Amino acid sequence: MSEHYIVTGCAGFIGSQLVDRLLASGQRVTGIDNFSTGQRRFLQGALGHPGFSLHEIDLLDPAAAQAAMEGGDCVVHLAANADVRFGPERPGLDLQQNTVATFNVLEAMRAQKIRRIAFSSTGSVYGESQIIPTPEDAPFPVQTSLYGASKLACEGMIAAYCEAYGFQSWIFRFVSILGERYTHGHVFDFYRQLQTDPTNLQILGDGRQRKSYLYVQDCIDAMLMAMNKASEKVNIFNLGVDGYCEVNDSIGWICEALGVRPALHYSGGSRGWVGDNPFIYLDTRRIRALGWSPSINIGLGVIRTVEFLRANEWLLESRS
Amino acid sequence: MSEHYIVTGCAGFIGSQLVDRLLASGQRVTGIDNFSTGQRRFLQGALGHPGFSLHEIDLLDPAAAQAAMEGGDCVVHLAANADVRFGPERPGLDLQQNTVATFNVLEAMRAQKIRRIAFSSTGSVYGESQIIPTPEDAPFPVQTSLYGASKLACEGMIAAYCEAYGFQSWIFRFVSILGERYTHGHVFDFYRQLQTDPTNLQILGDGRQRKSYLYVQDCIDAMLMAMNKASEKVNIFNLGVDGYCEVNDSIGWICEALGVRPALHYSGGSRGWVGDNPFIYLDTRRIRALGWSPSINIGLGVIRTVEFLRANEWLLESRS
Repeated sequence: MSEHYIVTGCAGFIGSQLVDRLLASGQRVTGIDNFSTGQRRFLQGALGHPGFSLHEIDLLDPAAAQAAMEGGDCVVHLAANADVRFGPERPGLDLQQNTVATFNVLEAMRAQKIRRIAFSSTGSVYGESQIIPTPEDAPFPVQTSLYGASKLACEGMIAAYCEAYGFQSWIFRFVSILGERYTHGHVFDFYRQLQTDPTNLQILGDGRQRKSYLYVQDCIDAMLMAMNKASEKVNIFNLGVDGYCEVNDSIGWICEALGVRPALHYSGGSRGWVGDNPFIYLDTRRIRALGWSPSINIGLGVIRTVEFLRANEWLLESRS
Repeated sequence: MSEHYIVTGCAGFIGSQLVDRLLASGQRVTGIDNFSTGQRRFLQGALGHPGFSLHEIDLLDPAAAQAAMEGGDCVVHLAANADVRFGPERPGLDLQQNTVATFNVLEAMRAQKIRRIAFSSTGSVYGESQIIPTPEDAPFPVQTSLYGASKLACEGMIAAYCEAYGFQSWIFRFVSILGERYTHGHVFDFYRQLQTDPTNLQILGDGRQRKSYLYVQDCIDAMLMAMNKASEKVNIFNLGVDGYCEVNDSIGWICEALGVRPALHYSGGSRGWVGDNPFIYLDTRRIRALGWSPSINIGLGVIRTVEFLRANEWLLESRS
């Protein structure tokens, strides 16, 4: 049966991929984006599709958010300030773009009588977990980043709306996501550096930071499967792969894909930035129990990302 | 050594008691309150004290908050929307009065180079914990009230500021607090009902809700002790008593103290209101390990509260 999805952040990396997948499966999609970081070119396919409509609005405008959600069956709320590293410089950004925007989404849903919401949270909500890989019911975490804190604030409001107003929610705690339409993060930064100067690469931290990455299409598979199969009031899932790499591994894959051998310059220390978590590796048994598993590993995800960037160098210009 | 404390919510139940205690121990205190629920009469003693100054401002005004905190050594942030029951009717209240106001406090501290903050959180952040009594490191909770969600959002921001800006914090997760200057909650409601009609009492829920209450002076003892002795970057403490009562027990103490025997009318159901937690009972071993223990039990706390209300019936008028 066809449903009407509202996708916030529809012009973003994951959002635009999700829009394309939903349209391809016969769903109707209303996309919302303020294009602060979203890319109109990511919506090229969707904009030609009869089942898609775009609302270029800001979720910090409650009336606009409410109007855009008219007639929706389900909201997938992906819009966010997604770059954890700006936290200490601009501490109000996460509060506004994540916490307040999510509140406006919830209020718009309530006004439009939409009761199902999927939400992109983050493995950063676990702070510096002592349990690795970290399960969804890990001990009550202490936050270490404004980004994680704001996503946790969103999770809390969403769950409270489920209790107070009969909403149902699917909350996904992501590791970092890679793949086609990836627009920020270390692969992007390294690619850009190497494009400018293939002989030198500056690396934040000591390169030993361990990271777990998930391929974007695997991420979307997991989200759609969970929304289809998990029927609790509040459904919380870690999304990630069983494994991790070091930033140095990733540098190796990138350089191999590009055929370059730069000199590596490390800023040193175990963290890339203040509030960076040296290791996010999530226990994904809960989502795997639904029958999901990732189709490709981290190395292949990095290589596909490099190939995408190579074929889309316009993106490096637009984000400079 | 004398220090300069900034106390937000200084005209409230706990805030005004804390101000009096700090002044009595020779500290300097700047009080902040918007008097939305604060009581000027609670500050009668403080206002005559040379070590006290009052700023009647709203924490939603960032510039006013920053100006009021000039020269402070330490902030005790107690200002909040403290009535969990308005959550579903006015969902924006917790976001504004708790989450956004706390952000403004943190930013004001950063501007004034104040790096120590004590914060009144709540046992509601544990949602419906499966572990009773609930320890600070209970499994990652799912929120069940907008109030709890907003307090968790504040905790997260505070912890993130400790990481990003070198702050130090003491976060206290309270059970309900009773005692002199208590201004809302079930004892207040029952007292007011019985004052109007001593022969009938309307009770939300089935009266079997179990609750754990802490006496306000014991609460302040614990806060001051923790701020003095606990020296981690982020110090989180449950504050409560080892034990609990049912609402029915409390009704018995209140009626006995008042010498009335009303007919009891129950609304039924295991919860007093949507998002009410049927049982908050906290594991307090962590704060007890510092040497603290409560001086009086729940029954005596209820009786002292009734005696206070009897001697201060002006309060019932002002809150009608």
